[in-house]
Amino acid sequence: MSKTIELAKHLEKLHTNNMYKSDFYWTWDKTDEELDAIFTVADALRDLRERNKSTRIFDSGLGISIFRDNSTRTRFSFASACNLLGLTVQDLDEKKSQIAHGETVRETANMVSFMADVIGIRDDMFIGEGHKYQKTFMDAVKEGYRDGILEQQPTLVNLQCDVDHPTQCMADMLHIIHQFGGVENLKGKKLAMTWAYSPSYGKPLSVPQGVIGLMTRFGMDVVLAHPEGYDVMPEVEEIARKNAQATGGSYRKVATMEEAFDGADIVYPKSWAPFAAMEERTKLYQAGDQKGIDELEKKLLAQNANFKNWSCTEEMMKRTKDGKALYLHCLPADITGLSCPEGEVDNSVFDRYLVPLYKEASYKPYIIAAMILMSKVKDPVAALMAMDGGDKRKLF
Amino acid sequence: MSKTIELAKHLEKLHTNNMYKSDFYWTWDKTDEELDAIFTVADALRDLRERNKSTRIFDSGLGISIFRDNSTRTRFSFASACNLLGLTVQDLDEKKSQIAHGETVRETANMVSFMADVIGIRDDMFIGEGHKYQKTFMDAVKEGYRDGILEQQPTLVNLQCDVDHPTQCMADMLHIIHQFGGVENLKGKKLAMTWAYSPSYGKPLSVPQGVIGLMTRFGMDVVLAHPEGYDVMPEVEEIARKNAQATGGSYRKVATMEEAFDGADIVYPKSWAPFAAMEERTKLYQAGDQKGIDELEKKLLAQNANFKNWSCTEEMMKRTKDGKALYLHCLPADITGLSCPEGEVDNSVFDRYLVPLYKEASYKPYIIAAMILMSKVKDPVAALMAMDGGDKRKLF
Amino acid sequence: MSKTIELAKHLEKLHTNNMYKSDFYWTWDKTDEELDAIFTVADALRDLRERNKSTRIFDSGLGISIFRDNSTRTRFSFASACNLLGLTVQDLDEKKSQIAHGETVRETANMVSFMADVIGIRDDMFIGEGHKYQKTFMDAVKEGYRDGILEQQPTLVNLQCDVDHPTQCMADMLHIIHQFGGVENLKGKKLAMTWAYSPSYGKPLSVPQGVIGLMTRFGMDVVLAHPEGYDVMPEVEEIARKNAQATGGSYRKVATMEEAFDGADIVYPKSWAPFAAMEERTKLYQAGDQKGIDELEKKLLAQNANFKNWSCTEEMMKRTKDGKALYLHCLPADITGLSCPEGEVDNSVFDRYLVPLYKEASYKPYIIAAMILMSKVKDPVAALMAMDGGDKRKLF
Repeated sequence: MSKTIELAKHLEKLHTNNMYKSDFYWTWDKTDEELDAIFTVADALRDLRERNKSTRIFDSGLGISIFRDNSTRTRFSFASACNLLGLTVQDLDEKKSQIAHGETVRETANMVSFMADVIGIRDDMFIGEGHKYQKTFMDAVKEGYRDGILEQQPTLVNLQCDVDHPTQCMADMLHIIHQFGGVENLKGKKLAMTWAYSPSYGKPLSVPQGVIGLMTRFGMDVVLAHPEGYDVMPEVEEIARKNAQATGGSYRKVATMEEAFDGADIVYPKSWAPFAAMEERTKLYQAGDQKGIDELEKKLLAQNANFKNWSCTEEMMKRTKDGKALYLHCLPADITGLSCPEGEVDNSVFDRYLVPLYKEASYKPYIIAAMILMSKVKDPVAALMAMDGGDKRKLF
Repeated sequence: MSKTIELAKHLEKLHTNNMYKSDFYWTWDKTDEELDAIFTVADALRDLRERNKSTRIFDSGLGISIFRDNSTRTRFSFASACNLLGLTVQDLDEKKSQIAHGETVRETANMVSFMADVIGIRDDMFIGEGHKYQKTFMDAVKEGYRDGILEQQPTLVNLQCDVDHPTQCMADMLHIIHQFGGVENLKGKKLAMTWAYSPSYGKPLSVPQGVIGLMTRFGMDVVLAHPEGYDVMPEVEEIARKNAQATGGSYRKVATMEEAFDGADIVYPKSWAPFAAMEERTKLYQAGDQKGIDELEKKLLAQNANFKNWSCTEEMMKRTKDGKALYLHCLPADITGLSCPEGEVDNSVFDRYLVPLYKEASYKPYIIAAMILMSKVKDPVAALMAMDGGDKRKLF
Repeated sequence: MSKTIELAKHLEKLHTNNMYKSDFYWTWDKTDEELDAIFTVADALRDLRERNKSTRIFDSGLGISIFRDNSTRTRFSFASACNLLGLTVQDLDEKKSQIAHGETVRETANMVSFMADVIGIRDDMFIGEGHKYQKTFMDAVKEGYRDGILEQQPTLVNLQCDVDHPTQCMADMLHIIHQFGGVENLKGKKLAMTWAYSPSYGKPLSVPQGVIGLMTRFGMDVVLAHPEGYDVMPEVEEIARKNAQATGGSYRKVATMEEAFDGADIVYPKSWAPFAAMEERTKLYQAGDQKGIDELEKKLLAQNANFKNWSCTEEMMKRTKDGKALYLHCLPADITGLSCPEGEVDNSVFDRYLVPLYKEASYKPYIIAAMILMSKVKDPVAALMAMDGGDKRKLF
């Protein structure tokens, strides 16, 4: 029996009916079984790919991508996922479009969705804005479908908003699962999500938020650490706490990177912006106050510079379990001595983890494809089984 | 019998042989039966899409798009149409290319058409230029095919030129046909194509020209209204007059928006630039006189401002048939109180027509796909029938 | 027996095993039989295309393109080749990506290659840089495949580096072969690769280098001519000399365009930058010295201007064999009296050769497709035979 068939048999046991035609905003909207389904389908698609099986679920169709922030990894992951399933990507480049001040999101949403099967949106720059944009957009296409404007109802893959970064965090999680040999081995493992110094400014909070919102669901001891002022959204911390209670794990905050790293099995040191400052920035942005934004930036860079010792050095790594914690990063990292004089991580640490880091990233296309498949295919078990015995991808 | 089969049977009665391998520049180049064929195929493709039937006529192939002006709606419509038929879009982004001063259109045309099945061009900015560019381009690829440079002869879909905007106007028309329950119900209906105030400057004349050039062919009473100086091209008005004579409808000009709206069944209030000024602008552009263009812009904005009362207000709408004329717009509109302080249409009017407006736009991908299909497929009746009984688009 | 079957039978006799899974950097890395295989497959794909046969070797998959310099011809040729074989192009636009200073090529290479079957890179701007980038990139993806990050091993098509421009030169060569009725007719033919004046600055050396590195392999008398200071890389000249010795042809340098053109059967007059200056430019670029680059540019333009008599005029053409040598150019050319006052070639000469010039260019998509096919398909003979009897490309 192939790995795909095994995975399909596992999928069969899960309750996934609600995933059909549903959007993927945040991991905490989904049940444990639904997340399990995503991981399972991602593994199956990877197995099929390795065995040169076609994984097309579409003969034609479009995946619309909207990147309101620069992107390489996520852009190529989305393109790869769409291609894997038979969809063509059409990118909405707002600079080449007529989207002027005044055109409503509802109008844009309908105009770009005529043949859209799936919509991928990255909008992570402003607290309180990213998710709102995605929700408004998807409400509009839902209405469009109901009103007979669209012949198919596109579904959303959140490619990063101000709250969560589910495709990243689920790829991170699938990487952890495989590194530790299965979910069943994660109980009691300590994961440290910590802030780290970077010479840049204003990185989104969605990765740390996504990590504590997702990784508290597997019985692990999740620790969050950051300097004063770099809190994440309290709503997400609340979710992390509830998750931990439900799974027999724990969620807690500590004051130093050292404490977080002590005995950790997994570390995720990464820069992000101070929450309150990000809220202020949103207001300045809404008021069109570029001077205010520039001044805020200066202030934040100065504030950041107080915490240069929050760095994943060799010394810091020695504190982790056997000095060999699994090091995670969503990439690109600010690497001390390689990309900047002082950054998130020592070059020697980063370099030692290159292969696992790239593997971590390599799950993202499959996670995205699995999200799409689960939202578009009514009987995913049958689909996987058909693919397992189906046509080749490379024909000769 | 499916709707598609019914439509195929209707198509069978029409004389469409000349459409095979032909370009689509202007609606008035085409016979009534040929336009009927486009509407029929567009409806069939939509029906097939709704029923999850694959509508691919290509296993592989390219649709080349050239947008010499910004575009969202038309860009996504063209991409959707190509995808629907199995073509991949390759966009010629003149900024990323080596197309310098001096490279001839003939050379560019051949260089981008090696695998091109269809070419979509938008070039609407300068009176006397847009159509010329399209014609020069297509003459070159025809020569390239004859000379053995290209293995297939690509055909044109005019995505808007300085004279006509056929994909827009035919989408508008198909919308009208469906709203009124068939072409047979249009006899004697009054359609008002009127200028409307916008705070912007220099919008193309191709929409009003396309509308009077097409919609005078269905027995309707077509009325054109605009302030002094905002005439459209006289050649197109001549076509409108002849069309009206041939179909028992009428074409006339009136001096005010009020007169145009009185008792109208359909209204299409929309800003466009003054013809003479557009001709002047073309000359300034050819002379590379940016200062002259800027001054002309100022003058025209001032001129525009004299006609702020040309607006589709609630008051104005009350003048129409039962106060409920079908409101049309090619989008995006300048909406008073939403996208600008004073514009083409009251927000309350626009908002009431949102769903029909989006539906109007939703015909464009199908119109484009129908134009492509009729120019690439020798026996379109057989093709539709095969699709009707053929493979699924979404496979699982 | 179809032309494709004939070509497949010829291909069967060639030793091509090493091409499978191999990269295409430079023509001189490949054996004569391997180059023959590329030409053979290119001709077969063109024959299949003419006969409306599907030439897909992939059901899905990605071709990644990276253009670090502007491009129209090569961009569309790569897109056409990918489409021909069933791959979708995903372009890495470095401006829209997070590729900042510091992100390593190794990381980028892995991040964009998750589903990549083929990578096309153009990096031709700086001597000593282009090839290095391509090699670093491909070493990284090979490692990525070995480490289980990528499920397939992408292969490279060099779309122009600082050393060679193999897709261009092989298209040029296939054009020559067809114009002269077969490789067997090339023995003793004189080919003049000469520098020509252009008002622009800093064109890559890869075309003249590629030409002397490739065209010395077919028994021709290859002559290189350029003003003092416009030498090409000595390593490539050494290759040209060895090639000539091995095939019974010759390679020599002459001091004037006149001498090169005298009695030539084929002429390739084209501007390129002085080698030493290009090395200097690379250093200035590495030092970020924009002022230095600007000054160098001025100096080089002045230097260029001393050689305006190096132009492919009607007079010059009269010196060639019967005054009718085959004129080659990679396009776009600087045409005297059309695109510039004084350039590489007289308008009347250029115009007389338009059709053959476009044909020359038209081989490039097939050459690229052949390179991809030979690197991805284990049994290319069987593949061509299957395609010959296989499905249609245009389905109706």
